[in-house]
Amino acid sequence: MTDQPSPDARRGRRPGLFVAVEGGDGAGKSTQADALAGWLREQGHTVLRTREPGGTALGRSLRELVLHGEDGSVTPRAEALLFAADRAHHVATVVRPALEAGEVVITDRYLDSSVAYQGAARELGHDEVRDLSLWAVEGLLPDLTVLLDVSAEQGRRRRGLVHDRVEREGDDFHDRVREGFLALAERAPERYFVLDAQAGRDEIGAAVRERVARLLEQQR
Amino acid sequence: MTDQPSPDARRGRRPGLFVAVEGGDGAGKSTQADALAGWLREQGHTVLRTREPGGTALGRSLRELVLHGEDGSVTPRAEALLFAADRAHHVATVVRPALEAGEVVITDRYLDSSVAYQGAARELGHDEVRDLSLWAVEGLLPDLTVLLDVSAEQGRRRRGLVHDRVEREGDDFHDRVREGFLALAERAPERYFVLDAQAGRDEIGAAVRERVARLLEQQR
Repeated sequence: MTDQPSPDARRGRRPGLFVAVEGGDGAGKSTQADALAGWLREQGHTVLRTREPGGTALGRSLRELVLHGEDGSVTPRAEALLFAADRAHHVATVVRPALEAGEVVITDRYLDSSVAYQGAARELGHDEVRDLSLWAVEGLLPDLTVLLDVSAEQGRRRRGLVHDRVEREGDDFHDRVREGFLALAERAPERYFVLDAQAGRDEIGAAVRERVARLLEQQR
Repeated sequence: MTDQPSPDARRGRRPGLFVAVEGGDGAGKSTQADALAGWLREQGHTVLRTREPGGTALGRSLRELVLHGEDGSVTPRAEALLFAADRAHHVATVVRPALEAGEVVITDRYLDSSVAYQGAARELGHDEVRDLSLWAVEGLLPDLTVLLDVSAEQGRRRRGLVHDRVEREGDDFHDRVREGFLALAERAPERYFVLDAQAGRDEIGAAVRERVARLLEQQR
């Protein structure tokens, strides 16, 4: 027996590894999440590649309601609560069972997206939105959050055609989102890996693989 | 100037009157809400008769998802968050605007239903569910909550044919819901009017009218 908690005890004795890929619209999250999943599978890991919002059937219905709703006027608190509901259901029915089975879970967006979008840009309090999500997921935080840092202008160029209500917001909105993400990373640097989304896709991919490999090594 | 806050100051200087009708499934809420609305209109009041969940287009979509969802397995936290989202949207877009216009708002179910159903019966904490709803509505509480107290057995007989996932729950569930409502009324008796739902419809209606008339008198 030792006074130092083991890594497992610190993480609530759960096996598996939980990686979130975060960043503004057009940062390349989906590409990097796919690449990481593919590489880990080649290494023999069982990988669950998922996303928020919309990682469950319920979540896909909610995503439609929020992003493509008829009247385009979901109020800010309702929006935050809907994303939290999606997250609660996703974590309880998809993420936690996979982690408990020892899998690597890679999610395209998680709690930080809510804080950055609703907290920073929609002008609800950061801490309120964070507390809401933490209640929704019973405190589950990622082992690592990969933050692909993208400027509003760069994100806009990469997104190409406009898709939904959130993506249609102006550069000032996306700048506030970016600042929201960076502020979160500053508050808990040990859990974040911040990368400039302007770097090449392969360069980013290699850096992410190296960081995740190190985490998996530490888990043994 | 006086040290005593005026009734309007106590209620946050808002005009209008906000009445919630609460109680278990089969308590007769809808009948009593309709009767009260009709009587108030005869008295010359502008009345908004509404309901939760489902008092807005967004809310009706959410209600369908929760009560008639395909897999019937919305997790408890997700369910609580969806009802809170419905409530946030309903209050911001329907209830508050009507109150600010000086109308009488009568809602079939409000915050107490979430506390009683999710808090008591779904085994989430009462206070957690209440705090969630209070955040959703920025603290808006009814001026009066009419609680139609119904036993599980009586509610079952009155409901007749089974309708949705919640109504299909057993008597023990509905007993816990009933206890949840009564506990809320005990905590703030000045804001509650508790009636035995077994009394006759007209007798209940007359008692509710008398109590609401007194409140409107005090508002002048």
